[in-house]
Order: sequence, then structure tokens, then C-alpha cells
Amino acid sequence: MVIGICKEPEGENRVSCLPDVVRQLVQLGQEVWIVSGAGERAYASDADYKAVGAHLADEKEVCQRADMLCRMHFPEDDALIAEAREKTIWVGMYQPLYHAAEMQKMANRGMTVCSLDAIPRTTRAQSMDVLSSQANIAGYKAVILAAAHYPHYFPMLMTAAGSIQPAKVLVLGAGVAGLQAIATARRLGAVVEAFDTRPAVKEEVMSLGAKFIEVEGAADPSAAGGYAVEQSADYQRRQKEKIAATIAKADIVITTAQIPGKRAPLLVTREMVESMRAGSVIVDLAASTGGNTELTRNGETIVHHGVTIIGNSNLPSTVPADASKLYGRNLLHFLQLLISKDGRLQFNFEDDIVSAACVVYEGKIRDTRILQTVQQA
Amino acid sequence: MVIGICKEPEGENRVSCLPDVVRQLVQLGQEVWIVSGAGERAYASDADYKAVGAHLADEKEVCQRADMLCRMHFPEDDALIAEAREKTIWVGMYQPLYHAAEMQKMANRGMTVCSLDAIPRTTRAQSMDVLSSQANIAGYKAVILAAAHYPHYFPMLMTAAGSIQPAKVLVLGAGVAGLQAIATARRLGAVVEAFDTRPAVKEEVMSLGAKFIEVEGAADPSAAGGYAVEQSADYQRRQKEKIAATIAKADIVITTAQIPGKRAPLLVTREMVESMRAGSVIVDLAASTGGNTELTRNGETIVHHGVTIIGNSNLPSTVPADASKLYGRNLLHFLQLLISKDGRLQFNFEDDIVSAACVVYEGKIRDTRILQTVQQA
Repeated sequence: MVIGICKEPEGENRVSCLPDVVRQLVQLGQEVWIVSGAGERAYASDADYKAVGAHLADEKEVCQRADMLCRMHFPEDDALIAEAREKTIWVGMYQPLYHAAEMQKMANRGMTVCSLDAIPRTTRAQSMDVLSSQANIAGYKAVILAAAHYPHYFPMLMTAAGSIQPAKVLVLGAGVAGLQAIATARRLGAVVEAFDTRPAVKEEVMSLGAKFIEVEGAADPSAAGGYAVEQSADYQRRQKEKIAATIAKADIVITTAQIPGKRAPLLVTREMVESMRAGSVIVDLAASTGGNTELTRNGETIVHHGVTIIGNSNLPSTVPADASKLYGRNLLHFLQLLISKDGRLQFNFEDDIVSAACVVYEGKIRDTRILQTVQQA
Repeated sequence: MVIGICKEPEGENRVSCLPDVVRQLVQLGQEVWIVSGAGERAYASDADYKAVGAHLADEKEVCQRADMLCRMHFPEDDALIAEAREKTIWVGMYQPLYHAAEMQKMANRGMTVCSLDAIPRTTRAQSMDVLSSQANIAGYKAVILAAAHYPHYFPMLMTAAGSIQPAKVLVLGAGVAGLQAIATARRLGAVVEAFDTRPAVKEEVMSLGAKFIEVEGAADPSAAGGYAVEQSADYQRRQKEKIAATIAKADIVITTAQIPGKRAPLLVTREMVESMRAGSVIVDLAASTGGNTELTRNGETIVHHGVTIIGNSNLPSTVPADASKLYGRNLLHFLQLLISKDGRLQFNFEDDIVSAACVVYEGKIRDTRILQTVQQA
């Protein structure tokens, strides 16, 4: 099989495969073509790729040669799709539930789409879990960015001229990103509180040295595969009061709350922002799905009443070397399910991982939720 | 006495006194006037100052009223000096040894200059040690900035998709800034090595969990009041070889080496930078005195062969709230030496701290090294 590695769009610094993964693909008997310069922003040069056996070409040639194209971001540019061969297999992170129309477009051209963010979050799939590997980086970088913007120290400091109190950090949403944010803020010496609607995460939060903020009567999320679910109006009111009281005392707020296929829950209102001390910092990782903060602007850093609000859902792109490294390993583990011992491609839909990831197969949408969305449109 | 607090120049976010210090000056019987907006970039509003008893006015009025003007940065603008009263006492951090001509200018107008960075670094003077309080912040922020620019994680990470090695940090110069950089990098999970020509700091470096790089035969610095001294050519050659070997393996280099009154020692050559991995980061805190890195440009962030070089000697300005807080406390402790019990000003030159800080007194340069420089010019 010929595997092509695309250059990601402007503003994205990651690349699907670093040279280390390419070497392993070549060892698996694959022919790898990469768009010249694709790894540059992740600090991998064309020479590095050549050294491990990749072929270099421009985007057009890579598209025309490849049976499979690896591109993290969905090809928004129709010309790029037109350049690809019929029956091309696209592999990336495409949020297919949000992008039903785009999936239909691929299906119309007879193509196949594997979206790694659709892989079930089971134990066996952990090594392919791109949502986890990238959210982990987002949580880490959110705290580093907050510290870079915050006009005070994070750690407590005792000096001859007096002492400095540690920063108070509040993390909303204790999934992978939230837990890594807690761990990083604790490393830097901050006092950390965390909130999540799922009582099951309380122990993890506490084991990282943070205080868990409890609101009674949350909806049972156990049927949602570990994701958060929507909550009752009464719960939301009490949650809002508790969060408001905590935010007023917080210096840093990191928000990570997302619900798959829905707008991100609005947790931080304008009034809450205005209750914070001037110089405080909010990092909203849910910016691209509407934001957890009323004032967030996606992709922008704004200052409101002295409070800096960083709206960025693509922080992994700002840690491109390790983000690409982990993504590439996730991808490799997934491709190992598709590549037979003799190096040929096979789609075994009895494998729940392959079945969930492959949302479009040879011109047919396989995912029923996407089909419904397409039919309703 | 009337104490005026100036607004610092463009690009400086700190202010000499936050409201907390102003309150204490008022309690000491002083009349405090502050330039409107002076505290804004350090997150202290005019209303905050008013609430603790300060008077607000424009720069001209504050200069005309004040017996003493607190301004961290030397007033480069002659108009500002002209607005001040005869015999005004200026208090700030003026690097008087570098700025002999400016000191002469103040002397010519009959003024007095107290430069807090000239205070001896004795135990009694610790609470007034602005070099320490500000260098501490610089060391902390250098690591935060390095982490913000570094395309990898700092800490080690074990994930289902494989593990990430911790960042390797090299700190050159283990004074206050270097030690805080070591501590912060260790907090973030990095592996840290440090180098200093003073063998006495080895224990401090090791107690923070870093490895101390030793080069035999350093000149004895014990007579230099804790500062670094210049080294022999042979020592410098061996030092260079050792540093070169360490830098080639480092991901992050923080350089903090300075020698009072001299150009900063050149420790990192172009070849050494080019030996580093693409994506590595250098933060050069000695940028304003020529830089420890050959390629540093003061006040700029450049990329050379994939290595990011941040040249910034004014990082405390990027942590303006805590930097101003600590500076203000240092200043307050110093002013307490100058203000008698009945609230009046007195210069007791038998006090070694007052004597060292007061480099110009009522039109006369008191510091002999400055006098020499002026006479040689």
C-alpha cells in the first residue's frame, strides 16, 4: 500500500507521522510518500524523513500516488480532495458527528474515512486514543500559558521582603485535559480545586492533590462511556452558585468541559468573570465548540475587566513535537489493525475499533448517527 | 516629606509602590502623590491608590510637588528631570556604574540619587535587595517562557502510546536567578544541570535536585562579595569544552551569568547553538549587558537553526504584580532607614546601606568608582 502524509493547513504545527513512525510503516512493508515540508513545523526535516525511507514530493503527487492519505485535519479545500485518487482512504481526526456534510462529500466520491477520534475509549483502544493523547497536552499547555500570562508567581515564595501566596487554580472538567492541568498546576506549586459533574473522578482529582468541589444530585453518566452528560435545571442552578463562589476566589480558571456532539456547557458567566481580581487568567479549552466561558472568543486572547481570557482548543499544535509523536504512535497502532501480516490492507468490521473508526467505507456512510444527521439536513 | 511615584516608561509594567506600600508610607507620616495610571499595568488602579490615602495628579504636578521621586528606571527624558524640583531625591534601580554620565547629570542639577541595586548584599540588607527579589522572578519566568516555547513536554510522561522523556535543562550561572530557574524547572519535572564558576554554590545547586557541572581551577571569587569574577584563559578554554559538550545534549539553556560593571561573559557560541536539536530553547537573561549567547538580540526572540533564542533581561516586567510587590517592599525597608521617627528625612552615611545606595548626594557624586569613570570620560 502507498501511504501519503499530507501537510496540515496553515496554523497547524503538527504532522500525522514523525520519522520514527514512518520507519516502522516502511518496516511493515508500506511505501510512504510525504509532502515536502510537512514535518517542518514539528521540527522534522525532509532529510529526516528521507533517512528513514520516505519518498518526498509535492502535495499533488502525494495525493495522486497514495492509497491512504494521513491528514489530521479534514481537507476543507475541495481541490485537495479532487487531487486524491478514487477510493482514497483518509485517516485523521475529523469530528465526524459535527461534519456530517463533509462525510457525505467523501462518500459521494467513493472514498473511505477513518476518524481516530471516533475510536471507542476502551482498554484495548488506549494506545490509539488520540483524544486522550492530545487532551493531555492541552491540559499541560493550558497551565503553562496561564503561568506565562499571570502577573504573579504560581508557587508560594518566602523572601526576606515578605511572602507571596500560591496561585489559586480552578479546573472545570476533570477529564484527561483537566487532570493533566491539575497535575501541572500542582507541580508549579499552585493550590488547585476542580469540579466535574461525574462523581467518579473525585478520587483521581484528590490523588493529584486537588480539592474536589461537590454539587449533590448529578445525572448518572455511567451509560455515556465515561463522557459527561447534560444535567437537570435544578442541578445546573446549584452548580452555578457553587462555581460562582469558587471563581470569585480563583486566580486562574482552566475550563475543559465538553459534551460530544453538543455545544460546550456554559459554566463561567460575564458576572463571574467580573467578580475575579484584575490580573486573573482564564484558559478556555472548549473555545471551538462555543466555549465554557460566556466571553470566550475562539482563537483569540482578550482582556475583560483586567481578566485575560485565552480561547484556544488547539493547544496541542503549540507543542507540535510531542503532540505529533503521540498522535503518530496512536495512528501506527490503529494502522496495525488494518495491515495484514503480508502488508496488505484489510478492513475487519468485526473489530469494534475498526468498525467505530471507519465512519465512511468505499462511498457509504457506516455510522448511523451521521446518516441520521445527513438525512435530516 | 512629599513622596512622588512616577509612571515607568513604555514597555515597563512594574511600578515602584503598590497601594499596600503606599498605605504604610502614609502611616509613616509621608504625603504620597502618584501619577495617574502609574499602577495600571501592574493591576493597581487609581481608585486603589486613592483608597489608601495617595493623591493623584499628572506627571508634571507630581514632579513639582515631590521631595522624593520613586522611579525604577532612570529618567531618560530630560524634560522629566527639568520638571522635578531642585534637590529632588530620586530612588530607583539605575545601574549607576554603567550610567556614570547620567549620575553626573543629576549631580549637576544638585539632586540626590539612591540606587537600590547598589545596596551591599549583606544579611541586614536582604529585605532591601532588589537585585535578588527581581532576579528571583526572572529565573522563574525564564523557565515558564522556555516551557511555553518548547515543542515538547517538560515532565516525563508514560502513556498507553509510549513514553516521553523529560526535558534536559542547563542553567548557566547559579545566582538568585539561576537557582530559581533550577527550582522551577525541577518543579516542572525536567532533568537539570547547572554550571557556575563559584564552587561555593555547588551544594545549593545539588540541594535543588540538579547536577553541578564542575570545571577545575576557577579563580577565587570570595573577595567579590558573592559575585562572579573573571577567569583565566586556560580555565575559560576548559569551561568552554565542558559547556559545549553539555549544551549539545540539552533541550533548554537558561543563561544568567553577569559580572558587575562588565560585559556579560560569552558562554554559548554560534557553533554550540548549531549543535542543539531543532526545537530547543535558549533564554538569555544577560541580554541587556551583551548576552551570554553569541546570537542573542536584546529584547528580541529569534530562531537560529531551529533553536529559539529569547533575549530578555527584563522578565520581572512580565510578572508585574508580584515584581512590583516585592520591589515596593524592598523600597519601603530602605526608606525606613531614611525616615526618622518624627517622619523627617535624614541621610546617615555611617549606615553602610545608606552610604552605598546614595551614589549622588545634593549635587556630589559619592561613589568613587562612578567618579573615576566620569573623570576618565
